[in-house]
Amino acid sequence: MLLHLSTWAEVEQFLSRSRTIVVPIGSNEQHGPTGLLGTDWLCPEIIAREAEKAADILVAPTFNIGMAQHHLGFPGTISLRPSTFIAAIGDWTRSLVGHGFDRILFLNGHGGNDASIEAAFSEIYAEASFGRRRAGFALKLCNWWDLEGVGELAREQFPTGHGSHATPSEIAITQWAFPDAIKRADYAPRIAPSGPIREALDFRARYPDGRIGSDPGQATPAKGGELVRLAAQSLARELEAFSCEPVPA
Amino acid sequence: MLLHLSTWAEVEQFLSRSRTIVVPIGSNEQHGPTGLLGTDWLCPEIIAREAEKAADILVAPTFNIGMAQHHLGFPGTISLRPSTFIAAIGDWTRSLVGHGFDRILFLNGHGGNDASIEAAFSEIYAEASFGRRRAGFALKLCNWWDLEGVGELAREQFPTGHGSHATPSEIAITQWAFPDAIKRADYAPRIAPSGPIREALDFRARYPDGRIGSDPGQATPAKGGELVRLAAQSLARELEAFSCEPVPA
Amino acid sequence: MLLHLSTWAEVEQFLSRSRTIVVPIGSNEQHGPTGLLGTDWLCPEIIAREAEKAADILVAPTFNIGMAQHHLGFPGTISLRPSTFIAAIGDWTRSLVGHGFDRILFLNGHGGNDASIEAAFSEIYAEASFGRRRAGFALKLCNWWDLEGVGELAREQFPTGHGSHATPSEIAITQWAFPDAIKRADYAPRIAPSGPIREALDFRARYPDGRIGSDPGQATPAKGGELVRLAAQSLARELEAFSCEPVPA
Amino acid sequence: MLLHLSTWAEVEQFLSRSRTIVVPIGSNEQHGPTGLLGTDWLCPEIIAREAEKAADILVAPTFNIGMAQHHLGFPGTISLRPSTFIAAIGDWTRSLVGHGFDRILFLNGHGGNDASIEAAFSEIYAEASFGRRRAGFALKLCNWWDLEGVGELAREQFPTGHGSHATPSEIAITQWAFPDAIKRADYAPRIAPSGPIREALDFRARYPDGRIGSDPGQATPAKGGELVRLAAQSLARELEAFSCEPVPA
Amino acid sequence: MLLHLSTWAEVEQFLSRSRTIVVPIGSNEQHGPTGLLGTDWLCPEIIAREAEKAADILVAPTFNIGMAQHHLGFPGTISLRPSTFIAAIGDWTRSLVGHGFDRILFLNGHGGNDASIEAAFSEIYAEASFGRRRAGFALKLCNWWDLEGVGELAREQFPTGHGSHATPSEIAITQWAFPDAIKRADYAPRIAPSGPIREALDFRARYPDGRIGSDPGQATPAKGGELVRLAAQSLARELEAFSCEPVPA
Amino acid sequence: MLLHLSTWAEVEQFLSRSRTIVVPIGSNEQHGPTGLLGTDWLCPEIIAREAEKAADILVAPTFNIGMAQHHLGFPGTISLRPSTFIAAIGDWTRSLVGHGFDRILFLNGHGGNDASIEAAFSEIYAEASFGRRRAGFALKLCNWWDLEGVGELAREQFPTGHGSHATPSEIAITQWAFPDAIKRADYAPRIAPSGPIREALDFRARYPDGRIGSDPGQATPAKGGELVRLAAQSLARELEAFSCEPVPA
Repeated sequence: MLLHLSTWAEVEQFLSRSRTIVVPIGSNEQHGPTGLLGTDWLCPEIIAREAEKAADILVAPTFNIGMAQHHLGFPGTISLRPSTFIAAIGDWTRSLVGHGFDRILFLNGHGGNDASIEAAFSEIYAEASFGRRRAGFALKLCNWWDLEGVGELAREQFPTGHGSHATPSEIAITQWAFPDAIKRADYAPRIAPSGPIREALDFRARYPDGRIGSDPGQATPAKGGELVRLAAQSLARELEAFSCEPVPA
Repeated sequence: MLLHLSTWAEVEQFLSRSRTIVVPIGSNEQHGPTGLLGTDWLCPEIIAREAEKAADILVAPTFNIGMAQHHLGFPGTISLRPSTFIAAIGDWTRSLVGHGFDRILFLNGHGGNDASIEAAFSEIYAEASFGRRRAGFALKLCNWWDLEGVGELAREQFPTGHGSHATPSEIAITQWAFPDAIKRADYAPRIAPSGPIREALDFRARYPDGRIGSDPGQATPAKGGELVRLAAQSLARELEAFSCEPVPA
Repeated sequence: MLLHLSTWAEVEQFLSRSRTIVVPIGSNEQHGPTGLLGTDWLCPEIIAREAEKAADILVAPTFNIGMAQHHLGFPGTISLRPSTFIAAIGDWTRSLVGHGFDRILFLNGHGGNDASIEAAFSEIYAEASFGRRRAGFALKLCNWWDLEGVGELAREQFPTGHGSHATPSEIAITQWAFPDAIKRADYAPRIAPSGPIREALDFRARYPDGRIGSDPGQATPAKGGELVRLAAQSLARELEAFSCEPVPA
Repeated sequence: MLLHLSTWAEVEQFLSRSRTIVVPIGSNEQHGPTGLLGTDWLCPEIIAREAEKAADILVAPTFNIGMAQHHLGFPGTISLRPSTFIAAIGDWTRSLVGHGFDRILFLNGHGGNDASIEAAFSEIYAEASFGRRRAGFALKLCNWWDLEGVGELAREQFPTGHGSHATPSEIAITQWAFPDAIKRADYAPRIAPSGPIREALDFRARYPDGRIGSDPGQATPAKGGELVRLAAQSLARELEAFSCEPVPA
Repeated sequence: MLLHLSTWAEVEQFLSRSRTIVVPIGSNEQHGPTGLLGTDWLCPEIIAREAEKAADILVAPTFNIGMAQHHLGFPGTISLRPSTFIAAIGDWTRSLVGHGFDRILFLNGHGGNDASIEAAFSEIYAEASFGRRRAGFALKLCNWWDLEGVGELAREQFPTGHGSHATPSEIAITQWAFPDAIKRADYAPRIAPSGPIREALDFRARYPDGRIGSDPGQATPAKGGELVRLAAQSLARELEAFSCEPVPA
Repeated sequence: MLLHLSTWAEVEQFLSRSRTIVVPIGSNEQHGPTGLLGTDWLCPEIIAREAEKAADILVAPTFNIGMAQHHLGFPGTISLRPSTFIAAIGDWTRSLVGHGFDRILFLNGHGGNDASIEAAFSEIYAEASFGRRRAGFALKLCNWWDLEGVGELAREQFPTGHGSHATPSEIAITQWAFPDAIKRADYAPRIAPSGPIREALDFRARYPDGRIGSDPGQATPAKGGELVRLAAQSLARELEAFSCEPVPA
């Protein structure tokens, strides 16, 4: 069930059978010469919506702008500061918890979001459990590439040149979902350099075309489809397990 | 051109011919017994993407969660506090201005956003023009129903029972775009009551099924299509005029 | 009853017969070549205090600095950023609600405040109704020129050249209240230009003497007196109606 | 010169002969059984406006709501949280410094404001001198009872029972300025108790009628007039000295 | 008992016999040509730990970075902005109050902290007593030089040239505690100048070697030892009195 | 060189030969039945000060309170909210960068700090590089157990029951440094359970004595000494490498 295409009454009914919701979350940022700017929010959206076709899960609208300050040296990147990002995740959570959801899984598509999302969870818990109250809900961060089996499949598909930004696996997923938006370029070098991440201008100097350690030329729509199907199945299981996790009384 | 389906290099090229961008912005909130929770962000997204098919404009990802605290009494509504909303609009703006965009038009689908968006503009201008500097960019808020001719067409289509929330015009637009997600209900009363807007529980008590002054039963996909086509044409002209607006030196 | 000239015991007594209070709120900003910098906070203060002479109402101290960032290009303007303004309105409200006031009407004298005041209301409601509590109080924004009959009288008095900033009606009100502070100037052009409002330097370039669309030369103390008397009567009725407004249980 | 009764052009002219401004600042809070709620902002306003009659000084609008959280147990008190207060003082300062004022003297009427005002100064300096820039302006806090000679006069007038809140000297000043608003009460005990200040309910328990250590029954309008005249003269000298203070290059 | 060298179970036991805790708080900032950068947090730490040897008191970890923006012109100074400082004191307090401590004494070593600490207390009380609740805890600020008898001893030891920054008394205390870190310099002039405190560059221009009004050349480890022993005894009595202070019901 | 035992002039001299500084950072939180509350800030402090004995490095005061909200269910824990923590790290960084340090290594002792510290770095970079400026400094987070060789040694010393909180390696380090503060307890079970980390009460229910997955009974002062010596050597090399890291122009 896609929340944005449902009515409030349908969500009320859903809440009578489940209190778990998945929020696709990502970033809108450069992904090298051929990667779509939306890659990091499109991937979790694609996977969650694929999972929704086969399972009774509720998918929230996509949180599409994340923490991408180090990519701001490339046109088209849009970033929240960590402080804004944390406040916004808090408002989403408070809204959903207010309706009765008590298991919120953020399916994330951007590694650069991890620190701010974890910090947001702590900020929310600190507020909700102030004065020794029990918060009454659980938040979970899950990167799509950490879903069961997905990392293994990606390593099989791309034994070299997977890298960590503008990876062939994420490019492949968007190719599968948006075949009309496949871009081509000559990559030089074929496998991009690796190194540390600092601020935006430093990033652009180290990684002139935006990639880190990757060769996205290996991506194909077919490989993307394999990844999406496996990730969708694993997500459904992950949500099931999260829903059942015992909460100490 | 859809920013999220473009590469950074394509955005760089776009900037060489235009420095104007449109950001669809709305809210995810209850829209009565039959309206989609996504209505207010889907409408500007639908209109902007329709306009993009016929004109060389750049459409940003959709800012899909807005200021909807008064709708939080209905499941599925997700709201930012005004302070968070203002901070986030600031971060979007700073990101885009950093790339060279100097005309940002927010195409809005939720009247309840207006105050916070205008406040955000003032906050951003206050920061950017601190110390008597010229900000160097212009921000504009445009509700889709205020686009040239659109209000007139809606009044013609729905001479009574248009109302102000869960209106037949916005419902019609989402019916046209998502024919598989059309919902049915008996409306009682046919035209919902009107009145002031206060906090969330007061809202639900005054407007038990979520509508204000509207009879969404009049909506049809065909009427929605008429609205979208007209709005898309007006948006293209609005962007053209905004781009050409003289800035005093 | 003027709160600042009362004791806490007198306010305690007032609360036993009414839980409504009016807060004059405005801005300290340039008002063209002849308008007083205090115009926008003086007008609601003058009207509220006139109303207080004939009715048992409680008038709070005047909130005299508002959101005027676009006027900062002219000496003497003092502005709060929207974020500060919102925080301060919240603190005033929390203080008054803590004493038992449950109807707070902000009588506003500056259109540029509207967005931030409405945003502040939503921020306060969001906090007060968090966790599905009923807030228990109502906030209302009323611009003095929207009081019943006032707009009509102003249009009668000034059929042309009323404009939207440094209007003859607001100048007339301050002339009536402060006859020793009436200023003269040659207006060129007689009726100032109109246009959009952006940031401070853009504003000064578009509107070199500070006026927008107005000919304040038409103001007279007598016309100001007429406006004040009518507005004061309408304000008393407005407060009465607000006090009696049914709150859904 | 009173800023709020001046035009922007008059302020521009003033700036050509002086870059110093005085801001009356206080609090709206209970002042015992007979003291006006406005006492703490009225006193500096009265003194500054008296000084303005005899000297070419510029008096800003009064900053009338301060830090009075410990008085919130008494109806009519309105308080900013320190964080809001600090933000607002920052915005006033940035506005005035933007116009070219480089000496801002806050004439304060509420001891409870001192900490927040000093903290605000440090916050503003921290921002303005970030990156080893010279701030280029000086801020000064002056409590009216610390103006030269004023404390001595008050001790002479009220050798016993002056106390620290709802003092006979501040009551006398408002009696002189607002003879129609003089209130009477039996004080029991005649001299109120003294002790520490903690939070609001603790305060009301310790000081049931709101006074601390004072016997305001000794106040007379005549004594108030003496205090105002002396304070006004001292203020003029204080502003002169502040204007001339050498700034190390 | 030193909290950081205890286990949580030992703290739980302490809470069964006392609900009072002392937090050494200071600043890390320049202290003239011979003073240690840590002087202002070392002094209260030294005194509190000396007191702990003889009395059953609980000493928290030292809050070592305070409000020192005016010292940032000298290398090695580290400062929090007042807003950060206030937030952090709030978090410490909320943590400790959550465990059951209801008397928190901040033993301070930096006069420049006073305003921000007092503002923090008001901010915390405002939050804790919101909605007319009783906060249930008391906060106290005590500068070590204001402990009973300590000021007298310092004036006896250093009748001239004590000054207000990089004083011989604070230097002496660190000499006693860190004899291996005693530094020597020629002071020119012997007694440093005095004057007002503004922002950082102004400070360095007025006080080129960092001292204000002091001659630290008079400091000796022996004098420091005398000060520490007296201060430690007074602190123990101060904590005892604070613990016993009656709280109005 | 220990910054807090140095003068500003000595730091100025250090800056002429190096622009790198190490900041020990940790948390004050429960560490099971025998672990010291200060464990997480003591460990990096101990290691950094050991390294300082043999190398020309500069050690800042210890940032001793971190993000420990999930440990607040145990007495003695003191935690900053992530938002406060981020603000404070920003202020430390701005102070140090203002003096000319351009390589700041945070040697961390608490895994729960990682997310907030990384978020803080992004917040600082976002501010410093706003408007496409180069920030001009680099920040690095290094957990002491990730220093070269340290993890391997710990795994050798404690092949089973190392766990992730109140680990034998961190306990051993504090035993070596504070032999008088070694505590004993019967651990039941010997190896504590493992699982996810949520909010404070959930944590205490899952991990009743505070340990996660660890058997701290294996700790000895001797093993702690081995870890400290190795970590100190690795830290010196890490700082050297960080200082030499090429910065793209």
